[in-house]
Amino acid sequence: MQTRKQLQGIKVYSPGKPVEEVKRELGLTQVYKLASNENPFPPLFLGPVFRRELKRVQQYPEAGCFYLRRALAKKHRIAQEQIVFGNGSDELIVMALRAFVSSGEEVVVAQPTFLVYEIQAAVQGARITRIPLSGFKYDLEAMSRAAGPRTKIIFVANPDNPSGTYCTHREVKKFLKMIPKNTLVFMDEAYFEFAPGDFPKTRELLKEFPNLLCTRTFSKAYGLAGLRIGYGIMSSRIAAALQKVREPFNVNRLAQAAAVEALKNKEYLKKVLTHTKKEKKYFYRQFEELGVEFIESATNFVLVNWKRDTRKVYDFLLRRGIIVRQLQGWGWNNFFRVTVGLHKENEKFIRELRRFLQEERKK
Amino acid sequence: MQTRKQLQGIKVYSPGKPVEEVKRELGLTQVYKLASNENPFPPLFLGPVFRRELKRVQQYPEAGCFYLRRALAKKHRIAQEQIVFGNGSDELIVMALRAFVSSGEEVVVAQPTFLVYEIQAAVQGARITRIPLSGFKYDLEAMSRAAGPRTKIIFVANPDNPSGTYCTHREVKKFLKMIPKNTLVFMDEAYFEFAPGDFPKTRELLKEFPNLLCTRTFSKAYGLAGLRIGYGIMSSRIAAALQKVREPFNVNRLAQAAAVEALKNKEYLKKVLTHTKKEKKYFYRQFEELGVEFIESATNFVLVNWKRDTRKVYDFLLRRGIIVRQLQGWGWNNFFRVTVGLHKENEKFIRELRRFLQEERKK
Repeated sequence: MQTRKQLQGIKVYSPGKPVEEVKRELGLTQVYKLASNENPFPPLFLGPVFRRELKRVQQYPEAGCFYLRRALAKKHRIAQEQIVFGNGSDELIVMALRAFVSSGEEVVVAQPTFLVYEIQAAVQGARITRIPLSGFKYDLEAMSRAAGPRTKIIFVANPDNPSGTYCTHREVKKFLKMIPKNTLVFMDEAYFEFAPGDFPKTRELLKEFPNLLCTRTFSKAYGLAGLRIGYGIMSSRIAAALQKVREPFNVNRLAQAAAVEALKNKEYLKKVLTHTKKEKKYFYRQFEELGVEFIESATNFVLVNWKRDTRKVYDFLLRRGIIVRQLQGWGWNNFFRVTVGLHKENEKFIRELRRFLQEERKK
Repeated sequence: MQTRKQLQGIKVYSPGKPVEEVKRELGLTQVYKLASNENPFPPLFLGPVFRRELKRVQQYPEAGCFYLRRALAKKHRIAQEQIVFGNGSDELIVMALRAFVSSGEEVVVAQPTFLVYEIQAAVQGARITRIPLSGFKYDLEAMSRAAGPRTKIIFVANPDNPSGTYCTHREVKKFLKMIPKNTLVFMDEAYFEFAPGDFPKTRELLKEFPNLLCTRTFSKAYGLAGLRIGYGIMSSRIAAALQKVREPFNVNRLAQAAAVEALKNKEYLKKVLTHTKKEKKYFYRQFEELGVEFIESATNFVLVNWKRDTRKVYDFLLRRGIIVRQLQGWGWNNFFRVTVGLHKENEKFIRELRRFLQEERKK
């Protein structure tokens, strides 16, 4: 059986082992995973929601995310039909590609950045233009120059992953002005909540630029990565196009109910943001002390410029029960990414990193 | 912004209101939904699983569904890499189309049948050949004749929805022998558990026909519709193609954990199947008594041949708090579908149906 020819160059994602299996294989009792930009705080306030939903989990979820849609429309002061929900905000990437990009049409992405844009664009048969980061930051000017009449989507991760950098309101607004009206600007704001004050005011920009689609997620600051829920806000016309390709029951019942509740819990969000800010500073101070170069981050992770192959330090940390993320898949062999964990996890990471550097110096 | 031209004919799915909203609008305190082929028994044995997963719901699910994959490979006695998981088994439909069908290539579906095959095939830009049911049953012979050299996928719902009929092992085997090796046969077995003894032995057929892909779901007999989890079993080659288009975290954490547990609980499954069988017989007897024609079903729902427009009876039932499914969307204006509910729900449905018929006769 012949797969579509566009698929031939695509590598199959090879999933990692569960932490439990890593523990078993390495004979560890405790493993700290600082690899996937996850929130370290379980949202235990969802206990009542979980108990309630258990009693009706045999029923399909609401196809329109009725209650969550109402809450988010109010929060963002937009019309309900301007929101499209996804099984994680990454599903919005696929929906946008399926709605707007035919085989042979163009898509512009940064390099390196979040990998799903490029993988899914390739699946869709798009021609992909890659614009290198400049000083670890999206080069929006070069990206706008790359957008031609056949460019259907430009993907912008803001803040970016894995660099952790961001573009400001001014920069993004200037960029949007240069983009043709027929080109969709897909602005992935998964790390939005962690970003500083001069971050783009998306609601304002949406009014001015009807070709803008902005995604948000409950996976990071809201601590619901395991439930898979994200959404996009956009013009009603773009939303109607995405609804045509969306599967009706793509967002599960628990995710919808948990997200409604999470929006109400300002305390939890505040705790997460305060903690992340404080612990990033802790990382920065420690890195400076250790002489480790890093890129200042607008997210819940930090990119470390290790300046030599990361495999040794990665293995060293892993054997001591700390998983960080290597970036070979992004072509960055000399960088690794570390997520802000609980303070004891961050301390342990720094302690073991120091030990590695000491042992390295001895050799 | 121009959507892909293939999307222009596709209607946006318009989601129904939550039952709570229907209650409010109609001033009802109790509403029985017998419309969506849902299991009437909440899987309350999942309480401990829900409590455990709450504590790590801030973490991404396992991309490979490690533990569930292991359990299912053992259950079906197949290799682990022969399984692909979906956010509901309907996601497998999209994956198969994205992996195998380019714009302009052909797909064969029955008419009427489960609507997602046709909608998603249209999104993919496929040319669709529709083969009418024959006596409410899939006409496998006509479908095999329709499969030409450009036919990439034939979709078969077995048992079928909304007819409730099924094809036997002999019929399916004969059909598979007639299908070109380059054509994928997508066998959707969502209602598998409810089907009788001469239903196809899929594992046996998979060995003989490497172009067969068979999907199963946890949404029906296992009572997990709200969590969204299904899977396909197939040759490793087809699985590798589907993995290329799958998003890594498409199956949420709760769904994976619940499915592992559900596979262990034989009592629950037995209760569901015994109940469904008994209540279908109750429906059949009552329909016969009322002079209502129905199609015998291999599923957890029954198709009623109402022989006149269903809108009146639908409204009558709705105002009395019973939701059944009208089938105008399938072109069947004179049919409705009713799901097996709890006995008290089924009794109430029959009671109100009888009342409708009595009132109709008086006019």
